[in-house]
Amino acid sequence: MATHKLLLLPGDGIGPEVMGEVKRLIDWLNSAGIAKFETDTGLVGGSAYDAHKVSISEGDMAKALAADAIIFGAVGGPKWDAVPYEVRPEAGLLRLRKDLALFANLRPAVCYPALADASSLKREAVEGLDIVIVRELTGGVYFGEPKTITDLGNGQKRAVDTQVYDTYEIERIGRVAFELARKRKNKVTSMEKRNVMKSGVLWNEVMTQVHKREYPDVTLEHQLADSGGMMLVKAPKQFDVIVTDNLFGDMLSDIAAMLTGSLGMLPSASLGEVDVKSKKRKALYEPVHGSAPDIAGKGLANPIAMISSFGMALRYSFDMGELADKVDAAIAAVLASGLRTADIKSEGTTAASTTQMGEAILKEL
Amino acid sequence: MATHKLLLLPGDGIGPEVMGEVKRLIDWLNSAGIAKFETDTGLVGGSAYDAHKVSISEGDMAKALAADAIIFGAVGGPKWDAVPYEVRPEAGLLRLRKDLALFANLRPAVCYPALADASSLKREAVEGLDIVIVRELTGGVYFGEPKTITDLGNGQKRAVDTQVYDTYEIERIGRVAFELARKRKNKVTSMEKRNVMKSGVLWNEVMTQVHKREYPDVTLEHQLADSGGMMLVKAPKQFDVIVTDNLFGDMLSDIAAMLTGSLGMLPSASLGEVDVKSKKRKALYEPVHGSAPDIAGKGLANPIAMISSFGMALRYSFDMGELADKVDAAIAAVLASGLRTADIKSEGTTAASTTQMGEAILKEL
Ligand SMILES: CC(C)[C@H](C(=O)O)[C@@H](O)C(=O)O
Ligand SMILES: CC(C)[C@H](C(=O)O)[C@@H](O)C(=O)O
Repeated sequence: MATHKLLLLPGDGIGPEVMGEVKRLIDWLNSAGIAKFETDTGLVGGSAYDAHKVSISEGDMAKALAADAIIFGAVGGPKWDAVPYEVRPEAGLLRLRKDLALFANLRPAVCYPALADASSLKREAVEGLDIVIVRELTGGVYFGEPKTITDLGNGQKRAVDTQVYDTYEIERIGRVAFELARKRKNKVTSMEKRNVMKSGVLWNEVMTQVHKREYPDVTLEHQLADSGGMMLVKAPKQFDVIVTDNLFGDMLSDIAAMLTGSLGMLPSASLGEVDVKSKKRKALYEPVHGSAPDIAGKGLANPIAMISSFGMALRYSFDMGELADKVDAAIAAVLASGLRTADIKSEGTTAASTTQMGEAILKEL
Repeated sequence: MATHKLLLLPGDGIGPEVMGEVKRLIDWLNSAGIAKFETDTGLVGGSAYDAHKVSISEGDMAKALAADAIIFGAVGGPKWDAVPYEVRPEAGLLRLRKDLALFANLRPAVCYPALADASSLKREAVEGLDIVIVRELTGGVYFGEPKTITDLGNGQKRAVDTQVYDTYEIERIGRVAFELARKRKNKVTSMEKRNVMKSGVLWNEVMTQVHKREYPDVTLEHQLADSGGMMLVKAPKQFDVIVTDNLFGDMLSDIAAMLTGSLGMLPSASLGEVDVKSKKRKALYEPVHGSAPDIAGKGLANPIAMISSFGMALRYSFDMGELADKVDAAIAAVLASGLRTADIKSEGTTAASTTQMGEAILKEL
């Protein structure tokens, strides 16, 4: 049995708590002889700042580069609101994305039937929702230069951020979306603002070309990002795979996640290019929810998004699709049994702590 | 009685139809001696392109600069998808905003009780919703330079858009938001991405300063634009005034509009600075909805957003608040009577065409 190297980066807030439940799962998989994971742990975000005055240390970056997959909790919190911009908690996550070239961010937005009532949307609008946002993650306004604040004198400053996209960056994220659509409902909706942004013009043009050249069997639609956002709120089930840039993806995937009523349940995968020699790809898996500092340390956090992110790692990094299916089934079974953490608690269900939820899923497995 | 100069720019798609109902209202106000409007008409968007191969002619720009207010329909449609970027329909609207320095875009998102069920959100989430998005409209990535597509050779192109904000631009839009909040529930929520964008850092800093220095009596909260978007979907009633930049404002105001279930009902105002001498300000009023080419020319369009935008003109440009109240009351009364255009039709209500709706509102007045 092959040994897989995992780097666990719990981060801040509820990160360590939910990571604890993944650790429990990994230990069991190892001891039951189902898989062989070698785990190491590192610091990222505010916790790295507290220890080393950086958002991630060079040592942990080296571990990240050497790992087969990174399991990431969450970063940030008001405690670090005043730290310098360069070492703010988010910088650690952004550096991991950039230095590992994790250009493809997959964010499924699935509405668990048992939780449809937790959505602010009407049940009929979201029940059965199953879409994936494919977000470009290493380009655009997140990393473009110049990115500066300049003092102009007279109390005036000028802030500049730069959105940059090259053809190849749009092509490769397009391919990820089309490939994924082929395994799903075969439809891709590309979103940009071509009526205002030159990057939107190029995005639209390149998506159209990749589609025509390589994926004519997949349905491709284009929407302006603003009306796409509206459609997501009005009738989300019309979508299958949505492909969009880094900043629009940030907004749209959060909105899609919120629609489901299952924010504490949603995983994500950030993937690099497949290496031609080793056939491996760099990858980082993290829950869609944030560090939720207000409930940290209280045993209230929902570990399902984190466990489900580990499930995505099994599927995308270790070709253990069957085991991943079992993890998904265990989560569904526990939900069906009526167990709920505080964020998804409703009348007639049983309250569970982070640990109780993690243990119940493990028992189900 | 003072004479007010209006420029009507119906634009494309359903623009001319809904503008027709405003024209009817203006004619009646004139003939009944209630007000004195001098109206002129111009072309913008695709219709200007068809006539002059530009998105707005110099002659119409001159009229716009000379008018006391511009009443704007909508622009765009698939017919002009292939026209050169510089003369695409939207360019006409963007030029009006920029050349008239209409930096403050006010977009109320109000849920009409009679229409709450048209929302994809649960009634309790949106009933009574009354928020305003104050969007910066002449800066940011919409107008920043460079804005280019460069051929890099080897089939590669590079697209660049630039987000630029200066202190004074953030200050003046902040003041609009704080002033407005004082007349409402006294709360402003500022949204940006300070964790990723330098313009977000400056935005946050300047809003904090303006608040401390000039509006300490107003409550100011800051949210990241992505989680702000989520909160808008989850619990929109927590907001009063939201102030944000041009691009985030585009996305967030469309989402807020869609929440209400009343997209065909929502007006907007785009305002310039008040001139110290004349005490006047340039202004453009337009419905939040687009040109809806699919239903254009069929008498199906809802004229309420357009009429309500004219109502905002009465209030903000001509100090006719009482008359504006009467227009609002007439709209509410017609809705209460059960008359509905197709977009808001539900069981037990009476179908109306664009003209029937316009006439009913006028009769009510
Ligand atoms: C933490 C932050 C930098 C990040 C982003 O903006 O990408 C987060 O919002 C996300 O969506 O993963
Ligand atoms: C038509 C388009 C240029 C415009 C924008 O992006 O500002 C529209 O979406 C709006 O919100 O007024």
